[in-house]
Amino acid sequence: VILDVPATPPGAIPTVAWRSDSPTGIPGAVEFLDQTALPQEARVLRCTTVEEVRDAIRRLAVRGAPAIGVAGAYGLVAGVQSAADAGPAEVDAALRAHAARLREARPTAVNLGWALDRCQAAARHERSGASTVAAVLAQAREIQAQDEAACAAMGRNALPLLRHGGTYLTHCNSGRLATAGIGTAFGVFVTAMAAGLSPKVFVGEVRPLLQGARLTAFELAERGIAGCLIPDTAAGALLASGRIDAVFVGADRIARNGDTANKIGTYALAEIARANCVPFHVVAPTSTLDAEIPDGSFIPIEERDPREVLAFRGVRSAPEGFPVWNPAFDVTPAHLIATVVTELAVHTPPYDFARRPAGR
Amino acid sequence: VILDVPATPPGAIPTVAWRSDSPTGIPGAVEFLDQTALPQEARVLRCTTVEEVRDAIRRLAVRGAPAIGVAGAYGLVAGVQSAADAGPAEVDAALRAHAARLREARPTAVNLGWALDRCQAAARHERSGASTVAAVLAQAREIQAQDEAACAAMGRNALPLLRHGGTYLTHCNSGRLATAGIGTAFGVFVTAMAAGLSPKVFVGEVRPLLQGARLTAFELAERGIAGCLIPDTAAGALLASGRIDAVFVGADRIARNGDTANKIGTYALAEIARANCVPFHVVAPTSTLDAEIPDGSFIPIEERDPREVLAFRGVRSAPEGFPVWNPAFDVTPAHLIATVVTELAVHTPPYDFARRPAGR
Repeated sequence: VILDVPATPPGAIPTVAWRSDSPTGIPGAVEFLDQTALPQEARVLRCTTVEEVRDAIRRLAVRGAPAIGVAGAYGLVAGVQSAADAGPAEVDAALRAHAARLREARPTAVNLGWALDRCQAAARHERSGASTVAAVLAQAREIQAQDEAACAAMGRNALPLLRHGGTYLTHCNSGRLATAGIGTAFGVFVTAMAAGLSPKVFVGEVRPLLQGARLTAFELAERGIAGCLIPDTAAGALLASGRIDAVFVGADRIARNGDTANKIGTYALAEIARANCVPFHVVAPTSTLDAEIPDGSFIPIEERDPREVLAFRGVRSAPEGFPVWNPAFDVTPAHLIATVVTELAVHTPPYDFARRPAGR
Repeated sequence: VILDVPATPPGAIPTVAWRSDSPTGIPGAVEFLDQTALPQEARVLRCTTVEEVRDAIRRLAVRGAPAIGVAGAYGLVAGVQSAADAGPAEVDAALRAHAARLREARPTAVNLGWALDRCQAAARHERSGASTVAAVLAQAREIQAQDEAACAAMGRNALPLLRHGGTYLTHCNSGRLATAGIGTAFGVFVTAMAAGLSPKVFVGEVRPLLQGARLTAFELAERGIAGCLIPDTAAGALLASGRIDAVFVGADRIARNGDTANKIGTYALAEIARANCVPFHVVAPTSTLDAEIPDGSFIPIEERDPREVLAFRGVRSAPEGFPVWNPAFDVTPAHLIATVVTELAVHTPPYDFARRPAGR
């Protein structure tokens, strides 16, 4: 059975796209579905400079490790396209400067640096501004296409982990809004739906930015998958209730030993799932694997603005100026993870992602 | 050392109070600090009928198991005071009807039914409307005074569980806004502060109604205790970080075997605390013990309105009409609880609260 589900539902705004009126693709702009306005409003955010793309990534107008990789690659195209008429030394300097600027937009996801590295490597042997820009654009498009294919493959690979009519818990958003395809963990549910398994999916709100309530609930509705929203605080009771067959989450970075950084709150779900004998699966493309680091203690954890916690969309919820700790990610130790599903394989413990597979 | 900390900080509005211009206390009204408006506004809610008090309890203008008990008792006074001139049969019928109406305001906390039982029992042998009303008011005042004394005793009893300069995690609100005294679990921090132990207290926001962000942060500021607010999703990372010396929570109902119903999210903290070797303590007055039920599976769990989860203080945060599961409480199994601290003792496993101590 070939399960061909479009990355973007018909009529919907794509998560990330390169738009150009020219057949060469240059000049052009990166367009995002502005995720900060969801679910109230689906609007396009158009960026033509590196700073605009960097700002979009930092403000989480685009988020999700694979989507950030694609966004960064197109951001690099947006940055260097003005150097299309310049000499090789000048365009090379622009490439380096723009890549460095984009790389630091968010520290935890490994895909951003990985995509920028690929684009820079693709341009290494080009001898003119125009060919450099063309090479970076071609590479960015390839990264997008590969991620779309990887999502489809992850969904197929994970299917044996689901049963007909099963009920699952996921966390944050790992769907088409986080990738260039149908998603990582969320893509598993999209694939299961297409395969006729009728999954039911619970998701927490995911404070502080409510990606579960705003984005995953939106995608569940968009795909016609049965869903149910819970406060983050209800995840323990849900996992203890016996109603959840398995937990599926995405990842922002996976260390060599399988320790996995993902949205804050993931570790708690893994620990409670273990206590209640519920399998906990991580679904991520091989671009998320970081063979450079031996374990999760080496993953930098981004801490975000206290104002995200003190208020929601401008409505204050705590005393003014109260101290806040607001880490964006946590690390789930490998021993709590039943499988790591990539586009290439279903890995089981003990994990050893020492070498990235060829071609990625 | 006698640690005499006022239940209500100087100049602040009390959580629950009976107000009357008459020396007999009749007629009068129940006044609440309206907790739905905190932290933006501290305003008084005045109730003169059973329906107003019932509505205040249901809307969570007053919440917290011990405070609900006191509110219910004064609500009964508000209900029967108009029958002060009636005969014994008529006042007895009014007493039963009002108690039944108040009892069903919230199903999980055992203190509400317990307080109403006490008030009804106190009026049993009265022979006139006036003496019945006076007996119910006296009993309500005694319940309030006993809860204030119980809070102080719980704080003293728990002190040996803290160290100088320790850092603690609590959940929801169990302070003066939840009781008639300094609080249960929160009262431990107030007592530790008065004893010079300089505690530092982390608290989650506690979605959906944000009692941690709105109420506990407010009380930490009010008492000058060092505090830090986290999104509920960050509790796992915090407990895994090694920074937390112990978790202290209140309770809404404790079964004979020690299984404890408390605000949704409590069970998850207990499970994660256990996995990280952090002691987990329950602090509650003996009025919270329910010797009638053998274990937590017999505790009714209130499910609340989905609209609490679909919006955040009036700002919509999820797709309109999306399905929601919104349980108000969960049950922490006794095996995860290091101690149950009451006003009488520090209990350790195995718990057996078969008989309520005399006089309560």
